[in-house]
Amino acid sequence: MNRRMIFYMIGKIITLEAVLLMLPLLVSLCYQEMNCVSAFSITIIISTAVGIAMSLIFKPSNKVIYAREGFVIVTFAWIFLSLLGCLPFILSGEIPDFFDAFFETVSGLTTTGASILRDVEALSHGTLFWRSFTHWLGGMGVLVLIMAILPSDNGRAIRIMRAEMAGPVVGKIVPKIKDTAKILYIIYFVLTFAEFVLLLIGQMPVFDSAVHAFGTAGTGGFGIKADSIGGYSPYLQWVITIFMVIFGVNFNLFYLLILRKFKPVFTNRELWFYLGIMLAAAGIITYSIYPIYNSFSDSVRHSCFQVASIVSTTGYSTADFNLWPDLAKGVIFILMFLGGCAGSTAGGLKISRVIIMLKAIIRDIRHMLHPRSVETVKFEGKPLEPAIMNSVTTYFALYIVLMACTFIVLCFEPSFDLQSNLTASISCCNNVGPGFGLVGPMAGYGGYSGFSKLVLTFAMLFGRLEIYPILLSLYPRTWRKK
Amino acid sequence: MNRRMIFYMIGKIITLEAVLLMLPLLVSLCYQEMNCVSAFSITIIISTAVGIAMSLIFKPSNKVIYAREGFVIVTFAWIFLSLLGCLPFILSGEIPDFFDAFFETVSGLTTTGASILRDVEALSHGTLFWRSFTHWLGGMGVLVLIMAILPSDNGRAIRIMRAEMAGPVVGKIVPKIKDTAKILYIIYFVLTFAEFVLLLIGQMPVFDSAVHAFGTAGTGGFGIKADSIGGYSPYLQWVITIFMVIFGVNFNLFYLLILRKFKPVFTNRELWFYLGIMLAAAGIITYSIYPIYNSFSDSVRHSCFQVASIVSTTGYSTADFNLWPDLAKGVIFILMFLGGCAGSTAGGLKISRVIIMLKAIIRDIRHMLHPRSVETVKFEGKPLEPAIMNSVTTYFALYIVLMACTFIVLCFEPSFDLQSNLTASISCCNNVGPGFGLVGPMAGYGGYSGFSKLVLTFAMLFGRLEIYPILLSLYPRTWRKK
Repeated sequence: MNRRMIFYMIGKIITLEAVLLMLPLLVSLCYQEMNCVSAFSITIIISTAVGIAMSLIFKPSNKVIYAREGFVIVTFAWIFLSLLGCLPFILSGEIPDFFDAFFETVSGLTTTGASILRDVEALSHGTLFWRSFTHWLGGMGVLVLIMAILPSDNGRAIRIMRAEMAGPVVGKIVPKIKDTAKILYIIYFVLTFAEFVLLLIGQMPVFDSAVHAFGTAGTGGFGIKADSIGGYSPYLQWVITIFMVIFGVNFNLFYLLILRKFKPVFTNRELWFYLGIMLAAAGIITYSIYPIYNSFSDSVRHSCFQVASIVSTTGYSTADFNLWPDLAKGVIFILMFLGGCAGSTAGGLKISRVIIMLKAIIRDIRHMLHPRSVETVKFEGKPLEPAIMNSVTTYFALYIVLMACTFIVLCFEPSFDLQSNLTASISCCNNVGPGFGLVGPMAGYGGYSGFSKLVLTFAMLFGRLEIYPILLSLYPRTWRKK
Repeated sequence: MNRRMIFYMIGKIITLEAVLLMLPLLVSLCYQEMNCVSAFSITIIISTAVGIAMSLIFKPSNKVIYAREGFVIVTFAWIFLSLLGCLPFILSGEIPDFFDAFFETVSGLTTTGASILRDVEALSHGTLFWRSFTHWLGGMGVLVLIMAILPSDNGRAIRIMRAEMAGPVVGKIVPKIKDTAKILYIIYFVLTFAEFVLLLIGQMPVFDSAVHAFGTAGTGGFGIKADSIGGYSPYLQWVITIFMVIFGVNFNLFYLLILRKFKPVFTNRELWFYLGIMLAAAGIITYSIYPIYNSFSDSVRHSCFQVASIVSTTGYSTADFNLWPDLAKGVIFILMFLGGCAGSTAGGLKISRVIIMLKAIIRDIRHMLHPRSVETVKFEGKPLEPAIMNSVTTYFALYIVLMACTFIVLCFEPSFDLQSNLTASISCCNNVGPGFGLVGPMAGYGGYSGFSKLVLTFAMLFGRLEIYPILLSLYPRTWRKK
């Protein structure tokens, strides 16, 4: 275990956070929000000091790391980022309670979008900007950003990226990880900017366009209005719908499109599955909610928006789906588990895992018929290794256990009902955001106790980092010297 | 595919059902319920005719069967048994609707105990007896009974037993399957009789004692009173609690006890896990419901009864847990998934699968730390084959998919809410019986449409036969000649 290297890397990441905090500081200065200006300034000073101190004190002689260091770096980096990232909320006095501020920051970075705020419109621009900007940073990954910027050994970079990026397999677009990280961030930036411009064209104010572009890109979902996206025009709602779908797609496909390699994109199983599920779900929900809206176009718009929002695990809403018929709610309930494509900014189980699980099931059925035959299973044109299939089904078991444990702890809350607790745990573990009942899209997580908030905060972290990195960091063997 | 052998075996099983129907016929004669007497008589005549005709027409020259025939025989045997088994309900006019009668029969045979009846106390003794007797037959397995009675080739018998008995691995107690089946049925009979006697001692009427002993032994749960077991004395409730726990234990352990091999029993991991989960759950629920009953002994009794009932997937109740606090309901919700031990009459996922899944998770965590090391995982003192671990996690994925599909279909019911539909699908797939809301312990499944009832009926069959046999029977490749 290369412990020096772990703290050295965390020091670097904290320094990066200090740099990134300049952006909300700038916003606060523009809007002359002095409480925010001082809050961000103090946080930047603390982060810089801690970050540089850690990089100097723990400067390692040996920079070699293995898988285990990768997991530990990612886990602690995310916890440190969140601890320092919540300082502006506390120092500005806008979210004075530590558990609330920590919850809100983790919810931002993990792109969950669950909020403890009762009145989001009372917040200053600087705070709102930082909240949404954490979505953008967490979406693609803060460590991926560092890989793109800093010079780094290829082997070291892949171990960190594997631990931070979601999905069953992390594909390298190009041989060098540094270049892969750069390409991913460029695509990410261009798409975010495209959405920003399209929102501006639809006459959304500049500030609103920026925060919503960040929230959509990271598939986060923090809004700045009490009714989320409900108050904006149908054009703006459709723009956000389409971009939520786009940011749930594997980014490798965009790179292939740039290279004009169309065939692998159009034969991508995961993409078709992803679009197919959304289409089917939107169809059923339109049918279910039509009697409420009495307008086909409104029903289609609300149903497509909510489906895109839940499947991409964004969590924006244009309507309070908590009040929809139980058929629509049932479909949304199932969608909460799925998540977007692997290699996207979306959370959840990931469509590719669902496909691999179905393939594992078919493999087992065939195996029962012909116990001695060995069949190779293919996925996306390549043979699927049995080890990957098995790790996906095991991951699924762990993922369900995580939600069950979170749910049982929440049940000790006296004032929350079964439905709210169940969907709160599912929603947080999958980084969706809203649930049903007391944690519905027009409500929030503010009513939970400090302890429950902390549990949900860790549920979001477990979900975003896909459980193993945190579990490994808690496992004593990981810390052994050799 | 040895098709002749399949129909030949089904013919035998139907003939056996005709013989078994003599018992409820006798009960009807005792109580002079003439509508039942004629209903049972007609069913016996039809079953005998169909059964003997099938055995004669399809008499096979080649009696060799393989795994696939085993699965198909079990699937069709259960469907035929249920189709003929529901005739007495229809012919007696007590459950005139086919979907209702089929649901009730499958619920009985699969030992689910979910009922469509609105007023169970209006039924005649013969019908009530047959309902509960199906629990007893389905609990250990009708085909296991045939194996115990009829002369059969060892290879053929193991293939059929593997397909019918629940759990990840079917252990042979003694080398000969016929003897294993006999031993299992003798233990089953003795334990049922012991409960019957203890209930009689507690002054329960003879008829009530018999049906409740059947219902407990099969971990079924059909009651004969509107308030299930709520009206009986605390002594009787405790007797049933203890026997529900007993019938959820792996029957191999009872055989080991008879052989005075105490060590493997007391070191059985699954047993301790099973008892530990129940104890922890009962503790939390007692704490949760104490404010309602204001009596420690009442709270403990109700909590132990309900926990034993849900974990063993029986489904009896002494209190309407639907009205309990959400903490108690949350715990019950999670318990619905677990089920009893493998090799018991209980349904659900089975405790041994939960343990194997946890072991697979730990294996994967260790593998991440030391990718090149190969560690052998042990379970119950023996090395656990990786193939079994992988098939268990895949089964778990399939099991969750089954519940999700059942749930989505139920959501199309206009008058049922999310909670009722969700718990109905979980409860039926795990053969528990009651759920929450409109399908709570004091309510029933009568409100669902014919189509939904049929879906739930198949969900119960899928759950009891552990999905694969039915899936394989639907898979075209299974039916290929070679």
